[in-house]
Amino acid sequence: MAAEAEATITPRAKDYSQWYLDVIQAAQLMDYAPTKGCMVIRPTGMGIWEKIRDDLDARFKATGHVNAYFPLLIPKSFLAKEAQHVEGFAKECAIVTHTRLKSVVRDGKTTVEPDPDSKLEEEYIIRPTSETVIWHMYGKWIDSYRDLPILINQWANVVRWEMRTRPFLRTAEFLWQEGHTAHASAEEAVREARQMLDVYREFCEQMLAMPVVQGVKTASERFAGAVDTYTIEAMMQNGWALQAGTSHFLGQNFAKAFDVTFQNAAGVREHVYATSWGVSTRLIGALVMTHSDDVGLVLPPKVAPLPVVIVPIYRKGEEQPAVMAHVDKVAALVKSLGLALKVDDRDGMKPGAKYFEWERKGVCVRIEVGPKDVEKNGCMTVRRDNRAKEPVALDALAARLPEILVAMQSEMLVKARAHRDANIREVGTLDELAARLETEPGWFRGGWDGEAASEAAVKERCNATIRCIPLEGGEPAGRRCLVSGQPAQHTVLYARAY
Amino acid sequence: MAAEAEATITPRAKDYSQWYLDVIQAAQLMDYAPTKGCMVIRPTGMGIWEKIRDDLDARFKATGHVNAYFPLLIPKSFLAKEAQHVEGFAKECAIVTHTRLKSVVRDGKTTVEPDPDSKLEEEYIIRPTSETVIWHMYGKWIDSYRDLPILINQWANVVRWEMRTRPFLRTAEFLWQEGHTAHASAEEAVREARQMLDVYREFCEQMLAMPVVQGVKTASERFAGAVDTYTIEAMMQNGWALQAGTSHFLGQNFAKAFDVTFQNAAGVREHVYATSWGVSTRLIGALVMTHSDDVGLVLPPKVAPLPVVIVPIYRKGEEQPAVMAHVDKVAALVKSLGLALKVDDRDGMKPGAKYFEWERKGVCVRIEVGPKDVEKNGCMTVRRDNRAKEPVALDALAARLPEILVAMQSEMLVKARAHRDANIREVGTLDELAARLETEPGWFRGGWDGEAASEAAVKERCNATIRCIPLEGGEPAGRRCLVSGQPAQHTVLYARAY
Repeated sequence: MAAEAEATITPRAKDYSQWYLDVIQAAQLMDYAPTKGCMVIRPTGMGIWEKIRDDLDARFKATGHVNAYFPLLIPKSFLAKEAQHVEGFAKECAIVTHTRLKSVVRDGKTTVEPDPDSKLEEEYIIRPTSETVIWHMYGKWIDSYRDLPILINQWANVVRWEMRTRPFLRTAEFLWQEGHTAHASAEEAVREARQMLDVYREFCEQMLAMPVVQGVKTASERFAGAVDTYTIEAMMQNGWALQAGTSHFLGQNFAKAFDVTFQNAAGVREHVYATSWGVSTRLIGALVMTHSDDVGLVLPPKVAPLPVVIVPIYRKGEEQPAVMAHVDKVAALVKSLGLALKVDDRDGMKPGAKYFEWERKGVCVRIEVGPKDVEKNGCMTVRRDNRAKEPVALDALAARLPEILVAMQSEMLVKARAHRDANIREVGTLDELAARLETEPGWFRGGWDGEAASEAAVKERCNATIRCIPLEGGEPAGRRCLVSGQPAQHTVLYARAY
Repeated sequence: MAAEAEATITPRAKDYSQWYLDVIQAAQLMDYAPTKGCMVIRPTGMGIWEKIRDDLDARFKATGHVNAYFPLLIPKSFLAKEAQHVEGFAKECAIVTHTRLKSVVRDGKTTVEPDPDSKLEEEYIIRPTSETVIWHMYGKWIDSYRDLPILINQWANVVRWEMRTRPFLRTAEFLWQEGHTAHASAEEAVREARQMLDVYREFCEQMLAMPVVQGVKTASERFAGAVDTYTIEAMMQNGWALQAGTSHFLGQNFAKAFDVTFQNAAGVREHVYATSWGVSTRLIGALVMTHSDDVGLVLPPKVAPLPVVIVPIYRKGEEQPAVMAHVDKVAALVKSLGLALKVDDRDGMKPGAKYFEWERKGVCVRIEVGPKDVEKNGCMTVRRDNRAKEPVALDALAARLPEILVAMQSEMLVKARAHRDANIREVGTLDELAARLETEPGWFRGGWDGEAASEAAVKERCNATIRCIPLEGGEPAGRRCLVSGQPAQHTVLYARAY
């Protein structure tokens, strides 16, 4: 632990990828698990996820959704029922084949092995996503239009056996929520998918201080089994894009695969229309890469597990009692605001070392309390994001501290939006895109003729993808395709992405 | 759905097991999953679990614990490191052996099979409990006494390949919380294990209105790897016992298995002391079997996802507008209390049918609003547990409704405790126990000489077990062992159990 707490953070300008890993280690958000490609989410990381979960959950409930829980293990045959779906998920799944271990002696050593007698007739797949098992159940629950809509969400862990993993951004197991809804009409389902995309956008802006572009994915980037995939895309500080959440209109694909029909008001049987939508612990990675700096983690106050720390400053002996008495008063005030806080009264550690540690760990406001603050009946506040110092009188603290946190929250969004907007640039040709991607980190707005071949050409030449056709500004507007030079069907955003 | 809503509930006196299944189906708490031994937790069941989780989580945090998340998949070799632990869990675990499916053609049909090339060198076990992987990580995090204690809890799903399953009580996959703490001394660890047992007891009493007996398990009933297993035991309405939660003092067993040491204040390296403790979705089964009746589900208000329903009563046409306007007023009052509620304004359904449905589903208070209530500017409240009807004036409702719910919550605990206390009886010999278990449902207090053979004899003869040595009243007090007739080492509780 000591080693982590002191390890140097690589500057962003030197090695952005290493900087990211250093920040999350220094802040103790996670650790590497002994399971390949998996991580342990440590208490600070989990604290962030709990804030994310609680706030999103309230938004889901406010829009009429309820939670349920479906099984972790999905019969193998289920995965194969929707043709595109199996194509998308069969290549990277964890397969359960046995249900018992037995002791065996090998080379004189006792060990355990799967008991051949416990081999399953049909294997189970650990859910990579739950559409198949949920639509199997919906088939049991839906009979008439009166049973619709079903608006269910699940908070769960899923497993995708990814080859190249990166903490939070791509791990073999991750935590997420997956909404799965069933509707009597395509229009209603599309409305639902779009509504949840709006819920995600508002959540990202209001809680994560992270602006996102809403758009539609191209066919090649669609969820396996979807008719349309809507996405929110965020820009990281290095100009790369990160898909922060998706919402899918699934049409009748899963209803047909699992034969889920309902009798409509006119007495005719129809297949049900579906959506699914999800965000995951990936958002924690997005959060880190949107706001943190070379010193360490920077968190928007609304998702900070520990928004406030108080650091007492005194020479041992004479100054200590008065300072600590004053600290108690400050702490009581902060607590009365309902804010989580820590008083860092560790012995034998200089205040500077404490500042350093809490800055790395993303505490939003540090309150310093020394003999002079006792004298003036005040304290010194220091904001994490811009290091702004502000002395606050004790009788003003209960009013001022929340203002400081609110200002920090909103200024972080303004800053992130300014960075994002300043780094979306117009591009006209593939050559230009290839060249500029090397020198101007960011996203490029340009025309696309709607052809998969053109999309593939960009990917091959530039290692960049079409992030989305933005919901706002996605019309061709006279542009030509970067690749073919033909009149554009859409204006799209090209970028490198996580 | 229609079928479930109308199916008859078997009376308890006729078939208690079937009654239990009927109640949870009628209340739509769960459904059977296509995965063997697994269930789907439906929104009402999940709503109960969310109430349980949120309240327990607050209690854990108030006692200094934080949440974290450890991987679902545990390397096979980990399970084998603690000798008793592997003994206890190897026989019923889900084993992941492959990580990819591939398409194959069999008998002219395309299907998917585990790709032999994706066979893992070392298999993974889906966690049946997380001690092993957590202690592997603690080995990385603990170096000095300054790193202790670690007070971590995890909310997670676990899998145990049970043969005989019963919804909520015993399922192959279930949801739970597992606390895992690390301490510098045995005394502190024991104190922690006992503290969490108290947290569980208070939670069961205050939230579930379910009294429990706290005790210590005998060696044969101990958690695999524990030095001592503490338990809370609840009595179901049929007199059977249900282990509702356990808290283990693990000594240094896992620290030794994973070689986790710390340098103590004197500079000497020692193995760390551990506890673990957990409760699961089993509590929902306990809740149902403690309070429900032949009509259906009865829930204590504090864990009821839907505590209040309003049923309007009117003849269509003339009476409707006035009644519905009055219903709006009642609903606004209930909402202002922060209570979840539903106005059941379904057309074409008689009030009686609605009462029937909400009684089955465990709504705590039904509010009936008819033309006479409009006249009197009041409403009729009906409590679910005792069917008590009470007319309440509209301007008294905001004060009276919470009182009704508080009274219901506390009277349910009183009733359950009276039932429990009336059904714990003294027993002197094995013959007597065997005979009385058939005619007097309940628990039997009696002596035990502390010998495994005596314990086994009771099990074989009576199909009953020693539930625990109660923390209060577990001393021998002059009793003799039921089986051997020797002076008792302990007074214990004998009972049949889920």
